Amino acid sequence: MRLTDGELKTFDAEGYLFFPGAFSPEEAAYLRHEAEIVYAMDRKEVWRESSGAARTAFAAHLYNEGFKRLGAHPRLIEPVEQVIGGPLYMHQYKVNAKAAFDGEVWQWHQDYGTWKRDDDMPEPRAMNIAVFLDDVTAANGPLLFIPGSHKLGVIDAGHDLETTSYPLWTLDRDTVTELAERGGCVAPTGLAGSLLMFSSLLVHASPPNISPFGRVIVYLSLCHVDNHIRAFNREEWIAHRDFTPIVPLSGDCLDELVAARMAMA
Amino acid sequence: MRLTDGELKTFDAEGYLFFPGAFSPEEAAYLRHEAEIVYAMDRKEVWRESSGAARTAFAAHLYNEGFKRLGAHPRLIEPVEQVIGGPLYMHQYKVNAKAAFDGEVWQWHQDYGTWKRDDDMPEPRAMNIAVFLDDVTAANGPLLFIPGSHKLGVIDAGHDLETTSYPLWTLDRDTVTELAERGGCVAPTGLAGSLLMFSSLLVHASPPNISPFGRVIVYLSLCHVDNHIRAFNREEWIAHRDFTPIVPLSGDCLDELVAARMAMA
Repeated sequence: MRLTDGELKTFDAEGYLFFPGAFSPEEAAYLRHEAEIVYAMDRKEVWRESSGAARTAFAAHLYNEGFKRLGAHPRLIEPVEQVIGGPLYMHQYKVNAKAAFDGEVWQWHQDYGTWKRDDDMPEPRAMNIAVFLDDVTAANGPLLFIPGSHKLGVIDAGHDLETTSYPLWTLDRDTVTELAERGGCVAPTGLAGSLLMFSSLLVHASPPNISPFGRVIVYLSLCHVDNHIRAFNREEWIAHRDFTPIVPLSGDCLDELVAARMAMA
Repeated sequence: MRLTDGELKTFDAEGYLFFPGAFSPEEAAYLRHEAEIVYAMDRKEVWRESSGAARTAFAAHLYNEGFKRLGAHPRLIEPVEQVIGGPLYMHQYKVNAKAAFDGEVWQWHQDYGTWKRDDDMPEPRAMNIAVFLDDVTAANGPLLFIPGSHKLGVIDAGHDLETTSYPLWTLDRDTVTELAERGGCVAPTGLAGSLLMFSSLLVHASPPNISPFGRVIVYLSLCHVDNHIRAFNREEWIAHRDFTPIVPLSGDCLDELVAARMAMA
């Protein structure tokens, strides 16, 4: 999976790229089932909303074989290596649920803002790449992006410890409005298996999910190995301290797991 | 604007019809500006959210010329007459804003549930028809529908006086989930000027708007004149008591207002 020159230009201008159907329905369904297994675990890495519904399973690549392989999948690692320009380590790995009816808001923020302030990551030489494990629609709390907002470096933010279950450095409304008047506001939606790569500086948010359907998205935050974090303020399963370069597996690395699940069914 | 047999069949099966671009960008822009004028009025018909942002202007067709003409526009009245089968009166007229950042949720409900319980409207011989005055996107709190849910008559509901600024008979989660497992959950999105007709029995909701863009939708609730409400529990500017049949204007009825606005600009 090499990005074309056109894709690289689009990424540079917009701050994100969207690849519908990058993973097969079978791969997505397999991982969706694994997400349920992970969410049922009583582990400190599995965070819950005020309702008790699972919100995020951190570091699932360290205790689940399917998510381990996804964490070294060439469809995720190679395009990010191409843009970041070198070997990557896993800074953060999240399996994010947005539960039916209860899925909470994520306010407007830049991920790198948190990584810089909390973790002392030197530069924004890091990237998010996400895999939809459910169909993401206008109805179930899609990601919202402000295209082009990654061009402005780290934007002033306040530490929001109140409006959601997860502490976040969030942008004020005037700033978000000003950015959106220039770049607009988009919601990439698509079927399970779709892939979404976005700059760690891209301003984004996600509304509550009031629909009767939950939706799970896996997020890898990949960082150039030379750019590893310097401060260890957060739990090591939130901001990882293993800076070993990820060696991509082969493109069929999920096949045997998918086949084994199907044989069981 | 006559509905085709195919459209009538779709409406019967799904409970709604969507007509992107039914009104021109100029007509939509004209009415969007009128909405600002209406929202700036200090009137009892203009309801606000807890933040102070305008949420709903009721009965705007009674105090604004543009909304008056829209309330008798053949693109709205004729297709509803066709489905309901006879002359209509205006049961309710709302210019609904969903303010940027602050726009609140509307929980899952059927409109006819409220009209029956609160207003004693005898039968669901009534229909909603909506005009988007802004682009409605996945980002700014679109309407969510459960297709086919209009087939089940009036569904049990509880009176929600707490979670939003407006009292509403809302459905419980188990019911919504069961309906959506059969019919799915869709969010008709489109440009300003789009038209959305939906059964007064269709189960629908609308998420909060966390985006930096507000969005205004005008809703007409039209009822067969023979089916007028019997109970006058609500303010007459919320549940109207003027059962005079609406006589559709001509299709160009907004043109002179649009032209006058443009001449001023």
